[in-house]
Amino acid sequence: MKAVIALGGNAIVGKDRRASIEEQFSATKKSMKGIVKMIKEGWQLVITHGNGPQVGAILLQQKIARNIVSPMPLHVCVSLTQGQIGYMIQNCLINELKREGIKKGVATVITQVIVSKHDKAFKKPTKPIGPVYSEEEAKEMMKSYTMGKYGNGYRILAPSPEPISIVESEAIKNLIEAGIIAIAAGGGGIPVIEENGVLRGIDAVIDKDLAAEKLASQIKADILLILSDVDYVYLNYGKKGQEEIREISADELLEYQKEGHFPAGSMGPKVEAAIRFVRNGGKETIITSIEKAWDAIKGKTGTHVHK
Amino acid sequence: MKAVIALGGNAIVGKDRRASIEEQFSATKKSMKGIVKMIKEGWQLVITHGNGPQVGAILLQQKIARNIVSPMPLHVCVSLTQGQIGYMIQNCLINELKREGIKKGVATVITQVIVSKHDKAFKKPTKPIGPVYSEEEAKEMMKSYTMGKYGNGYRILAPSPEPISIVESEAIKNLIEAGIIAIAAGGGGIPVIEENGVLRGIDAVIDKDLAAEKLASQIKADILLILSDVDYVYLNYGKKGQEEIREISADELLEYQKEGHFPAGSMGPKVEAAIRFVRNGGKETIITSIEKAWDAIKGKTGTHVHK
Repeated sequence: MKAVIALGGNAIVGKDRRASIEEQFSATKKSMKGIVKMIKEGWQLVITHGNGPQVGAILLQQKIARNIVSPMPLHVCVSLTQGQIGYMIQNCLINELKREGIKKGVATVITQVIVSKHDKAFKKPTKPIGPVYSEEEAKEMMKSYTMGKYGNGYRILAPSPEPISIVESEAIKNLIEAGIIAIAAGGGGIPVIEENGVLRGIDAVIDKDLAAEKLASQIKADILLILSDVDYVYLNYGKKGQEEIREISADELLEYQKEGHFPAGSMGPKVEAAIRFVRNGGKETIITSIEKAWDAIKGKTGTHVHK
Repeated sequence: MKAVIALGGNAIVGKDRRASIEEQFSATKKSMKGIVKMIKEGWQLVITHGNGPQVGAILLQQKIARNIVSPMPLHVCVSLTQGQIGYMIQNCLINELKREGIKKGVATVITQVIVSKHDKAFKKPTKPIGPVYSEEEAKEMMKSYTMGKYGNGYRILAPSPEPISIVESEAIKNLIEAGIIAIAAGGGGIPVIEENGVLRGIDAVIDKDLAAEKLASQIKADILLILSDVDYVYLNYGKKGQEEIREISADELLEYQKEGHFPAGSMGPKVEAAIRFVRNGGKETIITSIEKAWDAIKGKTGTHVHK
């Protein structure tokens, strides 16, 4: 069985968004438990992950040092975080596997994801990322980024286009078929557009769960496992009549989505990814918390989405 | 035929160590020409690379932003540059291959390299890296790094231990045997020590040419191709009686090395890597400039080292 696992931000940094590198390693290590059990059972795995806190720290450093070192474009910042987080997951996972006496390779593949330059997201960047800038700082930053009003200051607004294709999917497929655990498409992947046959990095942030779905469909995974902070997808989340969803069809889930049960900033894209995956031929999408990953794989908990 | 190519810093940034990202992409693109010709001929390739200017920029940003964002340990900084430079090479190479109508995958593998915690380099860090710090700044930095006097200021001094083993060599081997071009062990690899069976990142900088040799031997490459700024290894370089070496045995080269022909900071480690590779079973090490790579492969130029 083949699965793509999408790790949420907390899986790597814990609850504190300004976690030190030691805390990040320790949170990552903890998150490997369920994954190690899957590997023991013989699953072929690709792990994807978010990069919010890490890209935020890099953008903040770049902001402060901007007069001395030119800030990097956003697509390059994503590549930096893929290196860092890939290393952390790779290191923690190899160590946990060794502890269990399992000899398995783990490898991070730097991943580009093609988006369309005609994606309507580029007309209206909506995703605020990184630190808050003063008006003066923002003026300067506007040379490199789209900036948007944010309270009394400004933040970088990134377009969030649809992932169309994972450039390195063949390499990723090769690795997992050779029995190696792959880490890929971190932070939603490095966004590139195709112009006259040339791939060119572009400033955008692709939703990590939608990128994970694209990758899962492209490598023909059986399961897409989306791990976040909550054990289930809920109807009326945080409201009266809150109710967990255990087993649901893509059509039903879509109905609930249309009714506005899943906010755009949190559960929305996960639900969207879940629906897409089973419609694209995947067997099942499971949405649960990192702590419940293993129980959810065994069918004991979590939201299970079928076609 | 299987080769490991070690790209020098200039191959990625050009002559200006403070090159903008556009200049870095443009320098990288240029450096792909000879490599594309090798791929056309059917070579299985792993590309390794330096990271001096990029890690320098990251350390400088961390220095300036240190009161707001905690500086990262050196091993994490290496992982960041592997992501960035891997992306640049991968992107440029895919585009150059497409231009030539060649459909080939390219993938960067984040790479850890095991070093010994008993390596004598840890007793006496010698490799200055990153920016110059004032005495006050240096005092603060000493909490995280070993600092050494440098002119009127201080610089981070990194130990430069021997590479013992490439952790991800199986993944890299799998990729190239599947016809995918791999980029790996960037910046000499992320240095890790093994303690009670656990791999743990450690602050050090592994020489990139020695790491490339270790990788080449481990995956049983035929050729180690070390590309830098000069067309040949020279005797009496820059002095009276300067003479290029075209064809030489490892034993002879070792003699010249003992005579002090190759300075520790530049040609020394390349020559050392060249000797080790053919002694470890490699067919040939070639040392030449990035511009002459293809001609050197064809035997027309460059220094060729045999057993």
